[in-house]
Amino acid sequence: MNTEWIAVDWGTSHLRAWAMQGAAVLDQAQSDKGMARVDKGGFEPALFELIEGWLNDAPLDVIACGMVGARQGWVEAPYSAVPCEPTPVAPFRVPGTDPRIRAFVVPGLKQVAPPDVMRGEETQIAGFLASHQNWDGVICLPGTHTKWVQVSAGEVVSFRTFMTGEMFDLLAGQSVLKHSVGHGWDDAAFAEAAADTLSKPEQLAARLFGLRAADLLQGQDSSVTRAQLSGFLIGAELAATRPYWLGQQLAIIGAEGLSDIYTKALQQQGAFVETANSTQCTLAGLLQARNLTRQTA
Amino acid sequence: MNTEWIAVDWGTSHLRAWAMQGAAVLDQAQSDKGMARVDKGGFEPALFELIEGWLNDAPLDVIACGMVGARQGWVEAPYSAVPCEPTPVAPFRVPGTDPRIRAFVVPGLKQVAPPDVMRGEETQIAGFLASHQNWDGVICLPGTHTKWVQVSAGEVVSFRTFMTGEMFDLLAGQSVLKHSVGHGWDDAAFAEAAADTLSKPEQLAARLFGLRAADLLQGQDSSVTRAQLSGFLIGAELAATRPYWLGQQLAIIGAEGLSDIYTKALQQQGAFVETANSTQCTLAGLLQARNLTRQTA
Repeated sequence: MNTEWIAVDWGTSHLRAWAMQGAAVLDQAQSDKGMARVDKGGFEPALFELIEGWLNDAPLDVIACGMVGARQGWVEAPYSAVPCEPTPVAPFRVPGTDPRIRAFVVPGLKQVAPPDVMRGEETQIAGFLASHQNWDGVICLPGTHTKWVQVSAGEVVSFRTFMTGEMFDLLAGQSVLKHSVGHGWDDAAFAEAAADTLSKPEQLAARLFGLRAADLLQGQDSSVTRAQLSGFLIGAELAATRPYWLGQQLAIIGAEGLSDIYTKALQQQGAFVETANSTQCTLAGLLQARNLTRQTA
Repeated sequence: MNTEWIAVDWGTSHLRAWAMQGAAVLDQAQSDKGMARVDKGGFEPALFELIEGWLNDAPLDVIACGMVGARQGWVEAPYSAVPCEPTPVAPFRVPGTDPRIRAFVVPGLKQVAPPDVMRGEETQIAGFLASHQNWDGVICLPGTHTKWVQVSAGEVVSFRTFMTGEMFDLLAGQSVLKHSVGHGWDDAAFAEAAADTLSKPEQLAARLFGLRAADLLQGQDSSVTRAQLSGFLIGAELAATRPYWLGQQLAIIGAEGLSDIYTKALQQQGAFVETANSTQCTLAGLLQARNLTRQTA
């Protein structure tokens, strides 16, 4: 296998790596050694567990994005301040690595007011824009911490982060609602719940315990409850982001299932939504970032 | 010690018992054997650990309220449906106890639409009304699950439950915000945050991650962050409950610290608030419930 470089997406909970030849994927590997489970000296060993078999005689570029660039990460890659291009500066070189690699970390973006930060999404945005020349609009990146990003003239103008995914996980898994939330899904229940808090966002706080009570009093199906919890939370997010998506050109970059959910909720409000695969965007963005390291080398 | 009866407040996480003579407290004891930590056969032993020394030759009435009356509790005490008095029926006798006690559990209340339930608060409301004849208005009982209760002509007319306290605990203790929320407090930061989501409740979802970003980018003091998180959540609750408190006679029954926080936020909105001690209300309500058992015995 003639690996030319290695792409790495290193988030809080997961590590994913790809053996690359130009823009083509030769092989891939992943582990659960996310940033939260690795201490300062553990980054290189965690990575080598995945990439050892891909190495050649000549040193390979490793281009990583995500929380790996945080202060507690492999190397701190200080944020660039918006408005700016998604990857406005060259990735930061990790010092003192095994000589078989030259490792770089893509810096995240920060917004001073209102304060906000991202690490990893900037690379997906760069990858998306690489195949969408002159694209102006708003990109939604759903996940644990969903980002809404306003893009114009090739720059990230502003963005906001929503803890919707993390709230869902905490409420469904660790609150009193865990007794009532199941594993299934109900499209109609989701749509109705999302429309409800989208039009009356102040009612979110009142709706949540009602899910538990509906189970206790009416034996409500636990897949309906799961869809309603998701709907209430995403509806409240869409109420807060209305200026971002109303009448805007809109793209969603995310994992398939979650992107579908956001797409349905937005289409229900008459929004036109384009979707893009998050892994493809990450790889395209890392390829761009690699080119930046070579320009400055 | 001449114990006449025993009052018990048995919630999800705590068990508290009082040796009583009429309305007077002779002694008290508590443990962490809340309903969630006791299985079906464990209720009586958990209680006897606390009350053994209070027992006489004659059997004593034990009157308990709270989650102990749930399906998984000591004895299921089915909900009464509102509108009704806070304790409209006699407490349910626990069968087959040690002959030194005659144990009873106060039933909770349910509301069919929108679905809602309470267990324990009905007893506090009964205790509050015992010393407030002809009181009409709204009672707020802040806690893990805060209740807002509309009372008229001695009856609970309607109520809503808010998971504000549990949300605060989950976000402060288990979300990404745990790295930024400290132990202190800042009154001004709380007031500003509460006013913010009270006037713009749809922004709650956007505000939460901003607390993390303000720490990362500006090194914001962790006690300010704690007060802001509480303010954002309580402000959103007050936005949802506006019809409950606006222009209404208002009483808060709760633990001192939390009652103060709600009182300040409501006074800031021009509401007039009376406060009552939750333990005193519980004991007064259990005394009333004991009288109900004697009328029907």
